[in-house]
Amino acid sequence: MYSIGIDLGGTNIVASVVDDKYNIIATSKTPTSAPRTADEIFDDIAMVSQEAVQKAGLTMADIDSVGMGTPGTVNSEGIIEFANNLGFNNVPAKHMLTERLGIERVFIENDANCAALGEAYAGVGNGAKDFVAVTLGTGVGSGIIVDGKIVNGVNFAGGECGHMVIVVDGEQCSCGRKGCWEAYASATALIRQTKMAMEEYPDSYMHQIAEAEGKVSGRTAFDAMRKGDIAGIKVVDQYIKYVACGLINLVNALQPEIICIGGGICNEGETLMKPLRRFVQAERYSIHSKIQTKIVKAELGNDAGVIGAAILGSVKE
Amino acid sequence: MYSIGIDLGGTNIVASVVDDKYNIIATSKTPTSAPRTADEIFDDIAMVSQEAVQKAGLTMADIDSVGMGTPGTVNSEGIIEFANNLGFNNVPAKHMLTERLGIERVFIENDANCAALGEAYAGVGNGAKDFVAVTLGTGVGSGIIVDGKIVNGVNFAGGECGHMVIVVDGEQCSCGRKGCWEAYASATALIRQTKMAMEEYPDSYMHQIAEAEGKVSGRTAFDAMRKGDIAGIKVVDQYIKYVACGLINLVNALQPEIICIGGGICNEGETLMKPLRRFVQAERYSIHSKIQTKIVKAELGNDAGVIGAAILGSVKE
Repeated sequence: MYSIGIDLGGTNIVASVVDDKYNIIATSKTPTSAPRTADEIFDDIAMVSQEAVQKAGLTMADIDSVGMGTPGTVNSEGIIEFANNLGFNNVPAKHMLTERLGIERVFIENDANCAALGEAYAGVGNGAKDFVAVTLGTGVGSGIIVDGKIVNGVNFAGGECGHMVIVVDGEQCSCGRKGCWEAYASATALIRQTKMAMEEYPDSYMHQIAEAEGKVSGRTAFDAMRKGDIAGIKVVDQYIKYVACGLINLVNALQPEIICIGGGICNEGETLMKPLRRFVQAERYSIHSKIQTKIVKAELGNDAGVIGAAILGSVKE
Repeated sequence: MYSIGIDLGGTNIVASVVDDKYNIIATSKTPTSAPRTADEIFDDIAMVSQEAVQKAGLTMADIDSVGMGTPGTVNSEGIIEFANNLGFNNVPAKHMLTERLGIERVFIENDANCAALGEAYAGVGNGAKDFVAVTLGTGVGSGIIVDGKIVNGVNFAGGECGHMVIVVDGEQCSCGRKGCWEAYASATALIRQTKMAMEEYPDSYMHQIAEAEGKVSGRTAFDAMRKGDIAGIKVVDQYIKYVACGLINLVNALQPEIICIGGGICNEGETLMKPLRRFVQAERYSIHSKIQTKIVKAELGNDAGVIGAAILGSVKE
């Protein structure tokens, strides 16, 4: 059998047909063009879903279930309670998809949780039952899998590990709290840390890199570090320490089999992963245990979301 | 049917017969007298277990399963891999109990996890499936229940939420890391914070309280606060903020139905719980959700451990 995985994003709607071995058979997409009414957006979701099924050479009769990842909070009835960047308030997503696609088995879930599920089952997790996915992007996103299932919590708002405070009274976070992991370990935070170091070190090579690129990015300090620039090395060392701090917190609390790290910063590859593993190894509470959490780079990229959404039907029931 | 719950502590071995409604029918106990050989200790564990069964007016044939909570790390084969205060290294606890009691269904688990299970099923949790128990004692202990089961993680060392860093490069923790929640929110930390404030405020009422009691305790600052002592108020306010910080981290990551707080500091009751709830309410990420984590005081006290141990047989299989 096949399922449809949908990633409803702020920019694009992507639908893929996925087989029972987690392979993407066919994909179709269209711009989200938010803000629009939920009805308009769901008409387009149904359209790309049907297109993907056609491209796969299948009909709706071959589809066992439909899963969709969306920004925001989704409750147990498949209602999107609140999704700021889509302008959604209490949108009955499950009902609207069932109606449009004629399929009963429809599952709606937060997009970060779908991505975690995709990596856990079909990506670097290789079926790991206890798994955490962390994304170092504009913010720090995360999804927690325990015993093969997404940890939604009592109000379906679980898994917000980016908003664990690692510095009481620290940097202001976008969520209103001070000192969240996100305020130290996101790409946004790294850029802020890079700019501060550039002010402090006017001779740093980071200035030349930023000028050549036309901006300070999440790569600026890493590139300078590779040239042996002292200020660049300092920024990267401190940033990695902040990322590691949150990872060790997760290890101590949950001891997952695998923590996978995704997002743009991950393109640094082993430059990032090696020192992270060293920190976690040295500082975890379970220092005497033979078995330890593996820290690995995410491997599915943007496909994690649609694959995870397609899997929802098999893990949620 | 009945089960036996055992709490193997550094000081005492307690065994209780528990019925299927989580009532304790009879209890027997004996000093642990560690360090002794594992064989000697397990002979006593078997003895108190049999005594409790006799006191209950039952025989071993009435016992469906035996559960034991122990300090340290227990693996899936029921082997206590490491328990520092008992001097245990790779002690095959499940096997040794089965042999001595003639019962096949024996389950061994970390003691903090047993206490969490007891409160979740038989105590203040009232059957909550997503539950965290936090103990503010000498250290900060915790146990996490997700979907009705203990979160052990890949190496059975999960649930060490006291060792989540809340202040990068902060106070030295006994675990080797700096800035752990335990180093700010334990009774030990509160006593340290109280002593520091007493040095800073030589006229504080805390000096009189400590002199009358013969020592600085976890109550000193709370008692001074109740008398309107400025330094006492400052210590308590800051301490509650630290406790709340870790609680909010747990809420954001797991959104459990209930977080229950136990340990000596909890005797402060609503003096502690009310401001904690206010902090959590104001700072949680899920501020828009209608359903929110309840913050409550533990109610089973020392019984949580034996009841949780007795329940192991019904949740682990």
